[in-house]
Amino acid sequence: MSADRQPSHIAALEAGGTKCICAVGRTPDELRLLANRLEVPSDSGPQQVLARITAWLSTQHAREPLQAIGIASFGPLDLDPASPSYGSITSTPKPGWRNTDWLGEFARTLPGVPVAIDTDVNGAALGEWQWGAAQGLDDFVYLTMGTGIGGGAMVGGRLVHGLLHPEMGHMRVPRIAGDDFAGVCPFHGDCWEGLCSGPALQARTGTAAHGIAADDPAWGYLLRYTAHAIGNIVCTLSPRRIILGGSVRKAGALGEAAYFAGLRRELQRSLNGYVTSAALRGNDEGGGIDDYIVPPALGDEAGVCGAMALAQRRVALQP
Amino acid sequence: MSADRQPSHIAALEAGGTKCICAVGRTPDELRLLANRLEVPSDSGPQQVLARITAWLSTQHAREPLQAIGIASFGPLDLDPASPSYGSITSTPKPGWRNTDWLGEFARTLPGVPVAIDTDVNGAALGEWQWGAAQGLDDFVYLTMGTGIGGGAMVGGRLVHGLLHPEMGHMRVPRIAGDDFAGVCPFHGDCWEGLCSGPALQARTGTAAHGIAADDPAWGYLLRYTAHAIGNIVCTLSPRRIILGGSVRKAGALGEAAYFAGLRRELQRSLNGYVTSAALRGNDEGGGIDDYIVPPALGDEAGVCGAMALAQRRVALQP
Repeated sequence: MSADRQPSHIAALEAGGTKCICAVGRTPDELRLLANRLEVPSDSGPQQVLARITAWLSTQHAREPLQAIGIASFGPLDLDPASPSYGSITSTPKPGWRNTDWLGEFARTLPGVPVAIDTDVNGAALGEWQWGAAQGLDDFVYLTMGTGIGGGAMVGGRLVHGLLHPEMGHMRVPRIAGDDFAGVCPFHGDCWEGLCSGPALQARTGTAAHGIAADDPAWGYLLRYTAHAIGNIVCTLSPRRIILGGSVRKAGALGEAAYFAGLRRELQRSLNGYVTSAALRGNDEGGGIDDYIVPPALGDEAGVCGAMALAQRRVALQP
Repeated sequence: MSADRQPSHIAALEAGGTKCICAVGRTPDELRLLANRLEVPSDSGPQQVLARITAWLSTQHAREPLQAIGIASFGPLDLDPASPSYGSITSTPKPGWRNTDWLGEFARTLPGVPVAIDTDVNGAALGEWQWGAAQGLDDFVYLTMGTGIGGGAMVGGRLVHGLLHPEMGHMRVPRIAGDDFAGVCPFHGDCWEGLCSGPALQARTGTAAHGIAADDPAWGYLLRYTAHAIGNIVCTLSPRRIILGGSVRKAGALGEAAYFAGLRRELQRSLNGYVTSAALRGNDEGGGIDDYIVPPALGDEAGVCGAMALAQRRVALQP
């Protein structure tokens, strides 16, 4: 975007496992305004969600033309531009959402408006890189723990796609002795997501995350499994920072601060001094582990701001 | 390198857990000549290894000036150019090798010759990208399973470094029910390397890998743990191909072909259809899993060729 031009008018769609948030504006601040956004529960299914969102966006577009649409969606997604199902959800365990064609639907209802699409977590990573906790860092990971668990990664300033896109939540972790919870992932049972997502916590305790007592052993399990998973990410991607968003981090009666403190301690235990870096040490003088695993600076707006960042980049790349 | 110039005369050093190989030449083929190479067992310790290599290289340099030195070394390494210990080995469990200063030693004995250094596996990845099984692929992983287990990764055409460099061998994997082998990693016990390196196989069976019978249950454990680890890499980095080198893959009486066939089958079981890609399916029409996990095209020369590739890149980057 050239300096003398006003920022583009953009639609940002964050499609999450619990709700889909659509917002329009020119800046992250504008996205937050109530008049500029629509929220639809994901459980109402893709037909309903798409119908409401495209109707609302058509009204917005008639009022002031949208210059791009950014979609940051849960997955797995087909992100291969050469594929016939490019821009669709593929093998999701989420009932009804398989083969939802985001890109096709927007191309049909808002023809001529360029659409950028990536995973919810790659989008959130880009948003945090542009406006949040990853500014100035070209190698970092954005994780979300909520209805599902996912991770987006930037390496050398580029979002990681490769064969498909990362699916970090489905990583396998060692089981803790004495824990016989089977896990809830329909594909893998006790992968990280199967053990530590919001629905997993609910299945384990019979209570939603926000209702679990601070001394419930579920938190200890969750922190130790998550520390092993994050340790595996450190061993594989060697990120300079890990941003952890999603609803689970709010950790009910345990609280977000205790959750992050526990996670940092358990990560140090899991790595056991093998990865030698000041970034993973105690935080007495700053720059240590307290700055290594952090919540998103954009808070719960990381996803929708990320969708805007995806769209802005798309507009900037246009001739 | 411009087209009208002869390739540079280069020293390539592969420092592995078992032996250090130093070779000189202008092309990968030249590196293979017996007169152009020196091998020193790593167990003789860093003083002895460095003394023999630098003496030999000084002779080579006097005969024909070396234009660059490439080092592909086991780690962990300090690869931060701003650090006082840049170019040194750091927290290795390998006896005697901690704080070995590769870069300082070569700067002292061969002053003025530019030195490039990276991990053995990043080096091998670059070698396979330039001359081997990763040609044309900008997103792939090179793994080695031998004295240790390590992984190098290219993402979007760049070798992954980030905070430090990947240490994939120290990833945690779920334990297989009924297997009570404690693992041999001094930092983590039963991490992937602790369960599946050459020394781990030897500790489990009392025999070196090449002496283990084809029907020994150790192979089944090794393949299943390794498939979970590779599955975790697929979930985290989403590579387009995985090249698996190192001595363990030769798999004694089981044989390399059966080892790769078993690994491909176990990877499909571990992912259980979640990551949807033709690259992970059966191989009836080519382009499937048989092309997804492959041995290095450069064979046991991947490391030393990789060291040459690191040096060539260094020379090419010079003004």
